[in-house]
Amino acid sequence: MIAEVVAIGDELLHGSLLDSNSSHIAGELERIGCVVGRFTVVGDEPDDLRAALADACRRADVVVATGGLGPTLDDRTRDVAAALGGQPLRFDERSWQQILAWFERHGRSVPASNRRQAELPAAASALPNAVGTAPGFRLTVHDAELFVLPGVPREMAVMLRDHVLPAVTALGGLTPTVQHCLRVLGPSEALLGERLGDYMHPGRNPAVGVTAAGGLLTVRIVARSASVAGARALCAETAAELRPLLGDWLLAEGDAELPELVLDRLRQSGTTIAFAESCTGGLCAARLTDVAGSSAALLGGVVAYSNAAKERLLGVPRRLLDQHGAVSEPVAQAMATGGRDRFGADLAVATTGIAGPGGGSAHKPVGTVCFALARDGGSKAWTVQIPALGRAFVRDRAVFEVWRALLTEPKGV
Amino acid sequence: MIAEVVAIGDELLHGSLLDSNSSHIAGELERIGCVVGRFTVVGDEPDDLRAALADACRRADVVVATGGLGPTLDDRTRDVAAALGGQPLRFDERSWQQILAWFERHGRSVPASNRRQAELPAAASALPNAVGTAPGFRLTVHDAELFVLPGVPREMAVMLRDHVLPAVTALGGLTPTVQHCLRVLGPSEALLGERLGDYMHPGRNPAVGVTAAGGLLTVRIVARSASVAGARALCAETAAELRPLLGDWLLAEGDAELPELVLDRLRQSGTTIAFAESCTGGLCAARLTDVAGSSAALLGGVVAYSNAAKERLLGVPRRLLDQHGAVSEPVAQAMATGGRDRFGADLAVATTGIAGPGGGSAHKPVGTVCFALARDGGSKAWTVQIPALGRAFVRDRAVFEVWRALLTEPKGV
Repeated sequence: MIAEVVAIGDELLHGSLLDSNSSHIAGELERIGCVVGRFTVVGDEPDDLRAALADACRRADVVVATGGLGPTLDDRTRDVAAALGGQPLRFDERSWQQILAWFERHGRSVPASNRRQAELPAAASALPNAVGTAPGFRLTVHDAELFVLPGVPREMAVMLRDHVLPAVTALGGLTPTVQHCLRVLGPSEALLGERLGDYMHPGRNPAVGVTAAGGLLTVRIVARSASVAGARALCAETAAELRPLLGDWLLAEGDAELPELVLDRLRQSGTTIAFAESCTGGLCAARLTDVAGSSAALLGGVVAYSNAAKERLLGVPRRLLDQHGAVSEPVAQAMATGGRDRFGADLAVATTGIAGPGGGSAHKPVGTVCFALARDGGSKAWTVQIPALGRAFVRDRAVFEVWRALLTEPKGV
Repeated sequence: MIAEVVAIGDELLHGSLLDSNSSHIAGELERIGCVVGRFTVVGDEPDDLRAALADACRRADVVVATGGLGPTLDDRTRDVAAALGGQPLRFDERSWQQILAWFERHGRSVPASNRRQAELPAAASALPNAVGTAPGFRLTVHDAELFVLPGVPREMAVMLRDHVLPAVTALGGLTPTVQHCLRVLGPSEALLGERLGDYMHPGRNPAVGVTAAGGLLTVRIVARSASVAGARALCAETAAELRPLLGDWLLAEGDAELPELVLDRLRQSGTTIAFAESCTGGLCAARLTDVAGSSAALLGGVVAYSNAAKERLLGVPRRLLDQHGAVSEPVAQAMATGGRDRFGADLAVATTGIAGPGGGSAHKPVGTVCFALARDGGSKAWTVQIPALGRAFVRDRAVFEVWRALLTEPKGV
């Protein structure tokens, strides 16, 4: 059972909106054992769209498409799918009633053009939209099952879960797939590849792959088998073989991202934390509070962008700022100590640096970031020179360095 | 001149890493007048990869592919491209010297497996990598020019700018394209579509499209012409016609995202700002400090996650917390006033709410968020019930509400 995903919309091709739907759909399909072979992103132009959908339906057993179901004239997926199925559009009264009910629930009047959203290819069955107006639909094209969902991510996700995944499961022929990630910190990608050796050979089951992202390497084990239990066993076997090869490089296992891992360790040790951020501007706190349950460990943070804020909110002595400058280890240390004290936290981490594009000097170029970690026994500070590859890059790497420090502290956190 | 983009890597199909390269490449190609017709995302499996590259090269004049150039055995793009071009791999001595120089600059020894990165299809020309080890290459396949770049975004971006864009420009046959965005707040997508009427008809030049994202509607005008000046004139003409149709709905023009627009208004009026954030956990400050130059207006922020932090860092009276609860308009108001006072800012905005998944009650369900804005003349508070569609959704919408309030305040900010 091979699936493909098609994302539709001119805005995706113009580089102004990132397609996150395909990735979500592929992850969910793989979880139920449906292998995804390709994603296609295409615009609203009818000929291009028709060709892309037809190609996908010829190659795959299941095609999940998103986008182009809005009420405006640049939304053409309904018409193109009908043409592809060799059928006219029909007005689906039940979908129209659901659209009317949505507007009524939201206390809004119904623009006449929303009627377009209730038009479906004649032989299609409607997929109701629980959180928006556009119904999706299901249609057979070239022996493939084509599911068309709205492009709005939250509408797509609910419709996928409630209607598409059960329907694909009912089609049968799925190959249970289990994956497991090992998060690695330390070696270069090449060195890690050498250590993994033949495990990475093409065609192996489980497949073992390496990805570099955000300063971390991920070793992904993907096992397929006739049963979930079988796939799980294969996956566990390879993981057990790889662990000794990775040794100290192995930072964590599973799908959890770094903020989740940090939060886990904090919660396990009953440690509370606060942040005192300058160049990261609230990113450390924002990423940690992205994780549900973060209030158990995070007391809060101060974003002290100006020198006055560093003095007033964190108690950084003015002479340190005058003598060493805001981007310095003594100031980072005073920020961390001040933050720890003010929040009454067990642990505080401070960042101060030059994210760019301006503000750099010969002595402290863009990318210079000072960090400090304060705890009961005292504090320590250190400096990292991050490559000046743009403001977002410097800030991202600085946040990564905070997670790295919290996860690799000899005492744990 | 039609281009396609191909992103390569099993990790992209597994739903664990989002492909942001294709969007960046498409935006840059469009900027120089090269129309992008399709993106394809495919895994490392050689047959699938070969089919995807061959399909793209048959359809398009220019194909830009990224990924699969790493040093490990699961990186197979070099071999597949060579096979597609009907040629063996050759060892490119100059690329190897550049790889050696990179390791020397970084004070690291060279793993033997990095030699793989200097192997290129025999007839390919190498594209040097200024910020990493993997060279890219250029190869003619089925009359298309195929450019293969590394998947690491910063390496890809530099190689695209320095080598691919100039080469595509030199090929000629480009159609200058100019786009302009109108940001709209207020109507539903359907209502906006009705107002725009025939402007949105397929095949029109300039094309006019509407996208809904992050609570905002974007009207995108895309004009193509034989000259840049001609495309610009067409675009400006349509924009001038649309402005009166949009009236008060028109929030801003151009590519700037909301935090940039907020920062612009703050800077123009010489207003300083501070944030007092609970449920948004630093996101407001983090998004505003993403914008270069934000230190001119943002003094800082407090992330007051715990009640104790609200009291100690923002001076929220305990009786307000006891009487109304942390998620209440009086507490939001006290947070904003306290934050404004402590940072000495002209303006402060506070957020306190229930992001979920836990913490909701019948009286204050998940998604309840209270906001307050404090300024010289006093403060005001209001509550928004955000649909409980996940923690990230609630937080995102809460941040959007902050930008909306700052941009639509009758007095401006």
